Amino acid sequence: MALIVEKFGGSSLANIDKLRNAASIVAADYKKENQLVVVVSAQGDSTDHLVEQAEAIGRRISPREMDVLLSTGEQASMALMAMMLMSMGVPAVSLCGWQAGIRTDALHSKARIEYIDTRRICAELAQDRVVVVAGFQGISPSGDITTIGRGGSDTTAVALAAVLEADVCRIYTDVDGVYSADPRVVQNAVRHYEIDYDEMLELASQGAQVLHNRSVEMAKRFGVQLEVKSSFINGVGTRVREVVMEKRSVSGVARDQNVALVTLEGLQDQPGNIWRLFSGLTEQKINVDIILQPPAVGQQTSITFSVPRESLDHAVEMLTEHRGDLMYESISVDDRVCKISIVGAGMASDYGVASRMFESLYQAGVNVRCVTTSEIKISVIVSEEDSDRAFIAVHDAFF
Amino acid sequence: MALIVEKFGGSSLANIDKLRNAASIVAADYKKENQLVVVVSAQGDSTDHLVEQAEAIGRRISPREMDVLLSTGEQASMALMAMMLMSMGVPAVSLCGWQAGIRTDALHSKARIEYIDTRRICAELAQDRVVVVAGFQGISPSGDITTIGRGGSDTTAVALAAVLEADVCRIYTDVDGVYSADPRVVQNAVRHYEIDYDEMLELASQGAQVLHNRSVEMAKRFGVQLEVKSSFINGVGTRVREVVMEKRSVSGVARDQNVALVTLEGLQDQPGNIWRLFSGLTEQKINVDIILQPPAVGQQTSITFSVPRESLDHAVEMLTEHRGDLMYESISVDDRVCKISIVGAGMASDYGVASRMFESLYQAGVNVRCVTTSEIKISVIVSEEDSDRAFIAVHDAFF
Repeated sequence: MALIVEKFGGSSLANIDKLRNAASIVAADYKKENQLVVVVSAQGDSTDHLVEQAEAIGRRISPREMDVLLSTGEQASMALMAMMLMSMGVPAVSLCGWQAGIRTDALHSKARIEYIDTRRICAELAQDRVVVVAGFQGISPSGDITTIGRGGSDTTAVALAAVLEADVCRIYTDVDGVYSADPRVVQNAVRHYEIDYDEMLELASQGAQVLHNRSVEMAKRFGVQLEVKSSFINGVGTRVREVVMEKRSVSGVARDQNVALVTLEGLQDQPGNIWRLFSGLTEQKINVDIILQPPAVGQQTSITFSVPRESLDHAVEMLTEHRGDLMYESISVDDRVCKISIVGAGMASDYGVASRMFESLYQAGVNVRCVTTSEIKISVIVSEEDSDRAFIAVHDAFF
Repeated sequence: MALIVEKFGGSSLANIDKLRNAASIVAADYKKENQLVVVVSAQGDSTDHLVEQAEAIGRRISPREMDVLLSTGEQASMALMAMMLMSMGVPAVSLCGWQAGIRTDALHSKARIEYIDTRRICAELAQDRVVVVAGFQGISPSGDITTIGRGGSDTTAVALAAVLEADVCRIYTDVDGVYSADPRVVQNAVRHYEIDYDEMLELASQGAQVLHNRSVEMAKRFGVQLEVKSSFINGVGTRVREVVMEKRSVSGVARDQNVALVTLEGLQDQPGNIWRLFSGLTEQKINVDIILQPPAVGQQTSITFSVPRESLDHAVEMLTEHRGDLMYESISVDDRVCKISIVGAGMASDYGVASRMFESLYQAGVNVRCVTTSEIKISVIVSEEDSDRAFIAVHDAFF
C-alpha cells in the first residue's frame, strides 16, 4: 500500500466530463489499495470570473477579502470532486485549507505555508477515505483565509506529500510531461522521461509552465518524488528525481515572454552608483534579472537590465523620481522582447553548448540583445519579432 | 450608538449595482455611528447554479459535500460586500460561519444553530469595523461546514441579533414590507406598519414568503425587534413586535400552493387504525397538515388529509405498501389544490370572521374542500382553478 498525493489543475476539472475523468484516475488508484490525498485547483476559468467581479468594485481591493473570494473556487471544486468519487463508490471527504491544517503566515494573496497539522487528514485516511484538499489556500495565525499565490495548488500538493511522507506526488495537467520546449510552439519537442530537480527548477524559472519553480524547490528540499502526467492521455509522463544518472548537456529550451528591458544612458561612472540603482529597485520589490553594462567611455557609462513586464511602469516611475541621485541622462525602455534559455545539468562539462546556441541564432538571423549564464543555464534576450524563430532554432540545434 | 443587524437576500445582491445599493444602505447607517453586523445570502441565482452542477454528478449527493459546495455562495457574497463597503470608505471584514462562531449540530443541509461564540465578531466590532457574516452556514462539532436549511440567512441574522442583543434586526428584501396578501396577486393588498410575532408566524407558516417562520419563531423567543424593509425603496417597512396594542381581526391572507390531498376510501372504522396511519406518516417525516374525517357509515369510513406536494409520492408509496395493515379499499390523490388562510390575532374575539370568509367564497362561486382553524387562523383548501379568485375574494372581504 502506497500513500499517493495527486494534484489536478483547473483545466483537468473544467467541466463535469473532465471532472469525471479525473475522478476515475483517482478511483483506479484507490482500488489498487493505495491511500490517496487529492489536491484540486479551481475549475477552468472560475477564478477569472471571481477576479472580474472584484475588479468591477474597484482597483484597490483588500487582499484579505480577495483571498476569501478566490478560495471559494477551490472549495467548490473539492466538493464536486468528493461527490464524483462517491458516485463511483469511492468513500471521500473534502477539506478546505483551514480544515486540512494548512497553516500559513498572514501575507494575504502570497502567504507562505508555515506548517501543516495533519491530524484531520490522517484521521480521514485511517477511515479509508480519499481526502480531497483545496489547493492554493490556508489559514493564518489569526484564523483568516489566505491564498498562497503563484503555483499555489502545486505547492499545496508537494507540501502535503512532504509532511505525509508520500511515496509519490503526481501533478496531473493538460500536457503529458516535461518537454525539451513548449510543444505548442516547437513541433519536434521531445518529452523527458526523467529530469532532475535542478534542471526542472531552471526550466520552470525560465518560463516553462508545467510546474511552478516554488513547488519544484520544495520537492527538492524535502526529497519529494514528483511525476508530471496528463489527465487526458494515459502514459508515464515525466519523473522529477533527485539525480538522473546520465545527464544530458541540454535538457530543455524555455521561453519567457514576461520580460522588458530598461536602458539608462549617460550614467556617471563612479563608485556606489550601480549599487544605489539596484538596491533602490530591490527595495521596491522589482525583480531584476539580466544586467548588461558595457565598458565605460570617459566618465560616462550606460546600463541595460531586464525586469518583469508588469514591473516596468513601477521601475520607470522610481528611476525617474530618483534621476538626480542616480545621475543619468536618459532612460529608454523596450517591452517587445523575450528571453530564450537553454537549461541542462550537464552543460557545465560540455564546452560546445554556448557556441552551438549562438551559432544557431546567427544562422537564423536573430540578433542577441543580452546574455546571461549560470552553471546549468544560458539565457539570451531577443526581439519579440524574432521570438518564435529563435525558440525553434535553438531547440533544433540540441534535439 | 445602536447595534444593528442587517440582512440582505440574494435578490438584493444579484449584481454589482444591487450590491452597491445594499452597501450604501449599510454605509449610511455606519456613518450615523452605529455598530453593524451584516448578514448576506448568496447572490441571485448562484445557488441554483451550484445545485445544477451537483445534480449533474448524480442523484444521491452526500449532504456534507453539498454543504461544502453551497456555502461557497454566501462566502463569495460576503467578500464582495466587504470589498464594496471598503471602496466606500467603510472599514469592513467578512467572516464565514466557522469564523463567526456559528456552532451547529451535525445535521447537514438542515443543521440547527446550537450556540454562537461571538468573540471574533465582538473583537471586530470593537475595531469599528462593519462585520459581514455569511448567512445560512455554520460549523459542526467535528469541524465540518454545515448549512442550516430553509430560511437560512434570516435565521442567521435573527440568531446573531439575539446573542449580540442588537437593538434591531433589519431584513432587507425585494418587497417593502409585510402585506395583507401577496401584492403580486392581490392588487389592493395593504402594507402593515406593525404586526406582532404570532400573526407574522401564522402568515409565514401559511405561505407568505417574506420571512421564514423559523426566523420569526426565534425572534419571538428572544424578543428580537424585527423590521422588514425594501433594499430598493426607501421607506419604513414593517415592524414585527412583541405586542401590537390595537389588534386587527384579520391581519393578512396567505396562499400556500405546496399542498396535495390524499383520500383513503373504505377504511375500517376501528380503534387504532387512524393512529397507525398518522404515526406511519410521521415516521417517514411526512408532514400532515389538514385532516378531514366524515362520520363513519356502518363499519367503514373515509379520511382526507393534506401533505406538501413534494411528499405526495412518498406518502402514496408508504400507504400502498401498508394497505394490508391499514385496512382501506382505495386511495386517491389530488395535487391541483391550494390552501388559503386568513390570519389575525384578534380573530378569536370576533365571531363574524369565519362567516365573512365563507360568505365571500360562496359569493365567488368557490367550492371549499376542507377547513381547519386555530385561535388566530382559518384555512381552507380549494381547487387550483379557483385559487386566484378565492385569494382575492377573501382578501377583499377583510381589507
